[in-house]
Amino acid sequence: MSAAPSPETIEVAGGGVILAGKRLLDDAARYLVSPSGRFLLVAPRSAEAAVARVRVALRGKLLLDLTIDDGERAKTLSSVEAIAEAALAAGVRRDDAFVAVGGGVVTDVVGFAAAILLRGVAWNAVPTTTAGMSDAAIGGKTGVNHPRGKNLLGSFHPPRTVLIDPTCLETLPERDYRAGLVEAFKAAWIADAALHAASVRALHEILARGPDAVLSLLTGAARVKAAVVSADPRESGRRRILNFGHTLGHALEAAGNYETLRHGEAVAWGIAAALELSRRRTGLPAADADVIRTTLARLGPFPEPERRAERLRPLIALDKKATAGGVAGVLLERIGRARVEEALPAEEWIEAAAIMTLS
Amino acid sequence: MSAAPSPETIEVAGGGVILAGKRLLDDAARYLVSPSGRFLLVAPRSAEAAVARVRVALRGKLLLDLTIDDGERAKTLSSVEAIAEAALAAGVRRDDAFVAVGGGVVTDVVGFAAAILLRGVAWNAVPTTTAGMSDAAIGGKTGVNHPRGKNLLGSFHPPRTVLIDPTCLETLPERDYRAGLVEAFKAAWIADAALHAASVRALHEILARGPDAVLSLLTGAARVKAAVVSADPRESGRRRILNFGHTLGHALEAAGNYETLRHGEAVAWGIAAALELSRRRTGLPAADADVIRTTLARLGPFPEPERRAERLRPLIALDKKATAGGVAGVLLERIGRARVEEALPAEEWIEAAAIMTLS
Repeated sequence: MSAAPSPETIEVAGGGVILAGKRLLDDAARYLVSPSGRFLLVAPRSAEAAVARVRVALRGKLLLDLTIDDGERAKTLSSVEAIAEAALAAGVRRDDAFVAVGGGVVTDVVGFAAAILLRGVAWNAVPTTTAGMSDAAIGGKTGVNHPRGKNLLGSFHPPRTVLIDPTCLETLPERDYRAGLVEAFKAAWIADAALHAASVRALHEILARGPDAVLSLLTGAARVKAAVVSADPRESGRRRILNFGHTLGHALEAAGNYETLRHGEAVAWGIAAALELSRRRTGLPAADADVIRTTLARLGPFPEPERRAERLRPLIALDKKATAGGVAGVLLERIGRARVEEALPAEEWIEAAAIMTLS
Repeated sequence: MSAAPSPETIEVAGGGVILAGKRLLDDAARYLVSPSGRFLLVAPRSAEAAVARVRVALRGKLLLDLTIDDGERAKTLSSVEAIAEAALAAGVRRDDAFVAVGGGVVTDVVGFAAAILLRGVAWNAVPTTTAGMSDAAIGGKTGVNHPRGKNLLGSFHPPRTVLIDPTCLETLPERDYRAGLVEAFKAAWIADAALHAASVRALHEILARGPDAVLSLLTGAARVKAAVVSADPRESGRRRILNFGHTLGHALEAAGNYETLRHGEAVAWGIAAALELSRRRTGLPAADADVIRTTLARLGPFPEPERRAERLRPLIALDKKATAGGVAGVLLERIGRARVEEALPAEEWIEAAAIMTLS
């Protein structure tokens, strides 16, 4: 009946499985998990092409079919409340399951709603962006922003299933497509030198959206993330290497009011700054730093970020990873090998922001 | 320096410890846990006597000293947001810890705020009511109400430490004192026949607030709850015996708009109904049902509950434990032995509500 090949399967310890393959969406009923067999579908209008395929696949099993706003501004506790209200009005029970179709904002918000509704119901993620497929939908971090900062409220609540289907990406705007690939390459840089080498070789095809080339990169990135998360589900130690580029990246996003820069673009600049610190502190080879910068330049060009110390300093202090001794940060020793520094002085990030380049 | 005897210690698997003893509050700095050494104290005005003792004990270690409303009407997501906002404004970090001082509403709300702030920070519970000491503060269930029902939003997030100090109870209003004891006796009835026997013998002294007698009952109840929760932290199975009296109890509370009946009073009526079903379905001896009813009568008298089927039916359907097959409920086989029935027809609860008595 179906033409879809059987998907590649990546287990995540502590719950859930990632399935990667072309045209998985058309077989969504086979892969998505609900203890009761009933699903609550939640998605933004922008993901309509993918949603339509999931809706057909889950025909007769939908308790709720809810359209929500996406975009960083919709990532609020009010959105979570609205989802909870709709689910309760529809008669949700503890053994039902959500299906979030969309980008990272949607999977973060729906995952958080699932985490706190009835103290936790199951959910499934169908990311429709490169950012979601390589990062946001994997690993169980869910949450919303707070007027005081990004992702300040949330839970660890892994989805039962993540479907990675590159045929969802056809309608993704070019800027989002490229920004999301930053997170996929980040996974290679912190933990998989072979994935880096293969993906740099295939970069032309990846940028042209060749589904096989994209799928290889995204599957490799998902594999890295799943391995790291499996070893440290609550982010107490090793998992923090996934934050490579994020200490400064989050501050840059906030400085631009979450409008100037896409998340992946801010992370690209954050990586550029981390390369400066790594050169100085870990002896990262110049050749490794150069190939990363060149790759990021090919994914770009990205908008110029905020560089003023007085704007960045208070934003870095708000980092969730800030403790008494400074801000935890991730540095690269070489491509494929990252290490967490427990307490880097905020001033070093600020100096790096002043001089970082992507070219 | 301190005159407090060393406390009785009850470990809870999966996180946290319960400490029980007279005048523990005056040594709170020794018992409350914060990875950073900094605390965020949150309490209602009604708990001021206890709060003052904790405040002295934690002098110089308080990042925040916040007063919140209590009462079932304050158990909302807005209260959680307000706590999160105050904590962020104070500069909370991931390694800080909350201290909730107050009744079950306060520990539920503060625990939930701790669960979702920065995706989870540590917290400690200092219950100041019989209900909090015997039940609400123990076991990791946190949450708030939703216009559609009680505790519909929440998390499992156990406190690091629960301090049970009967000297907190001196100023508790008589009605709250007695209602909270229902949950303590409930623990005995579902799992500890010896605790039941000793507590019935000591009932006169318990009602007179003799601290040794109260401490024995509350410590025994905490031990039951800790054992049950340790075996089933996420409430997938055995833990549900703690809901003895709660299936109908929650519906009665909701029917009274959370104003007519205290939680413990509603549970007392819920137990009366469960005794009717148990007599019919599990062969609970008449003598066991009688001594439970007599004990509840001595804790009361409690206000007359809603008994009309048309008011109760929709409220029972909203129960979080409702699944396709009916409503899970807890029945008693004999004093000290409970069992979970996966799917009891809602109509049986409604019939029991019509005939239940406490005398």
